[in-house]
Amino acid sequence: MTASRTPDAFTDPREARGAYRDGLRTPTAGHCPGWTQANLISLPQPIAEDFHRFATRNPQACPVLGVTEPGEVSLPIFDGDLRRDLPAYRVYEHGELVGERTDVVDLWRTDLVTFLIGCSFTFEAALLETGVPVRHIEDGGNVPMYTTSVACRPAGRMAGPLVVSMRPIPAGLVERAVRVTARYPRVHGAPVHVGQPGLIGIDDLARPDFGDPVRIEPGEVPVFWACGVTPQAAVMRSKPPLAIGHAPGHMAITDARDTDYLVGG
Amino acid sequence: MTASRTPDAFTDPREARGAYRDGLRTPTAGHCPGWTQANLISLPQPIAEDFHRFATRNPQACPVLGVTEPGEVSLPIFDGDLRRDLPAYRVYEHGELVGERTDVVDLWRTDLVTFLIGCSFTFEAALLETGVPVRHIEDGGNVPMYTTSVACRPAGRMAGPLVVSMRPIPAGLVERAVRVTARYPRVHGAPVHVGQPGLIGIDDLARPDFGDPVRIEPGEVPVFWACGVTPQAAVMRSKPPLAIGHAPGHMAITDARDTDYLVGG
Repeated sequence: MTASRTPDAFTDPREARGAYRDGLRTPTAGHCPGWTQANLISLPQPIAEDFHRFATRNPQACPVLGVTEPGEVSLPIFDGDLRRDLPAYRVYEHGELVGERTDVVDLWRTDLVTFLIGCSFTFEAALLETGVPVRHIEDGGNVPMYTTSVACRPAGRMAGPLVVSMRPIPAGLVERAVRVTARYPRVHGAPVHVGQPGLIGIDDLARPDFGDPVRIEPGEVPVFWACGVTPQAAVMRSKPPLAIGHAPGHMAITDARDTDYLVGG
Repeated sequence: MTASRTPDAFTDPREARGAYRDGLRTPTAGHCPGWTQANLISLPQPIAEDFHRFATRNPQACPVLGVTEPGEVSLPIFDGDLRRDLPAYRVYEHGELVGERTDVVDLWRTDLVTFLIGCSFTFEAALLETGVPVRHIEDGGNVPMYTTSVACRPAGRMAGPLVVSMRPIPAGLVERAVRVTARYPRVHGAPVHVGQPGLIGIDDLARPDFGDPVRIEPGEVPVFWACGVTPQAAVMRSKPPLAIGHAPGHMAITDARDTDYLVGG
């Protein structure tokens, strides 16, 4: 990265990861358009196996795009160093957040299994391309996320509620939003619910559990997708001795293209 | 099941499983049309975790439709008893086939994790429905399968080559065959290769490694899909103390519908 280059100019995953490795701490929204961004979770064995079964049992919320061998620091879809090539990490001990860092090299253990989990950034690009507006992007905020009354299928020590993200969609475009996102089953896929938040235990759309509330205009319908916060909620609840995640919005930029996850396009 | 009922009349998974449980030993092709049939593999921990990572790393060959907790004998997509509701099982010890049985109740262990893996029966129905002929069904044989020179991504003790199935498709229908099967990513999805068997290490189409050879008519192109024998090949090569699989063609009939795995339909 040259000094004159702004982060917004990143188009190549290797270059972006190199800048993060050199200490650039920035949210990754808008970086490397067309390249898939992913959630990261590293867990020690054997709880990593519980998490893997949890993810397989709840694939819409926890789509595993890649999993390492214990101790490995790269993957075919991430030809870098998972310990330091994200802009920021969060470290949890026994379910408590104990720190945020720009690398986790000194915390690494040979029994850590790392999962890269699909992120809705991928289908949001597809929504925009097909003419479906995405309110929180228009407004420059984070997507609103809600804890639902829907329980995920547990696995071993891993259990927790389904967390959803919400996007208000003009009623006439809901069909298109369903159809477009359904083509991306490995990045949360089609909505899990349309229209009646009370039916999934959401009392007040103005008060999301994570992220920022968004305007809902007349004629718009709230549409809910399974959310990548679901695995983190389960991981935190299981209180593993150590867990490492990405800092919210500071994603793993992979070497996979968004179109790699497009089905039936 | 009444005495006058032929197995071909099965339309309900629960009824079919009950008949298998009562000792009916029959291949399941054609049973319960529209309901998803799956491969079964049960492995003891911790090798089950190696297999799970192997499957996640090779999702086209090893799509996990369901995974149990250790010792569990049912799943949401299989509301029966995995130890006896398939028509026949194969038992392996240290990688060697030691027997074939109609139930494995007495072999069951609390550390066995069972995986149900997607099967190409699902997309074959979709091919036929859309007018793409399936030769081995026309001819009443088993699909030809070949061990390729393509290595799967290993995980722990699990490693092995990609195994593919082959269907000869009229040249003008190859595009349709690709498109239709691509919509079923969790049952092997789109072909892994079209047209040049030598490029994936297949020397002689007339001599498949598993199944039966099929006619290739003038104007037809050999099309290759990742195959559910891949996980079994890796499991056998890893020589676990115990492994239980379904007997070839004697599949698990699930409570999932083929359309549950259709994406972008």
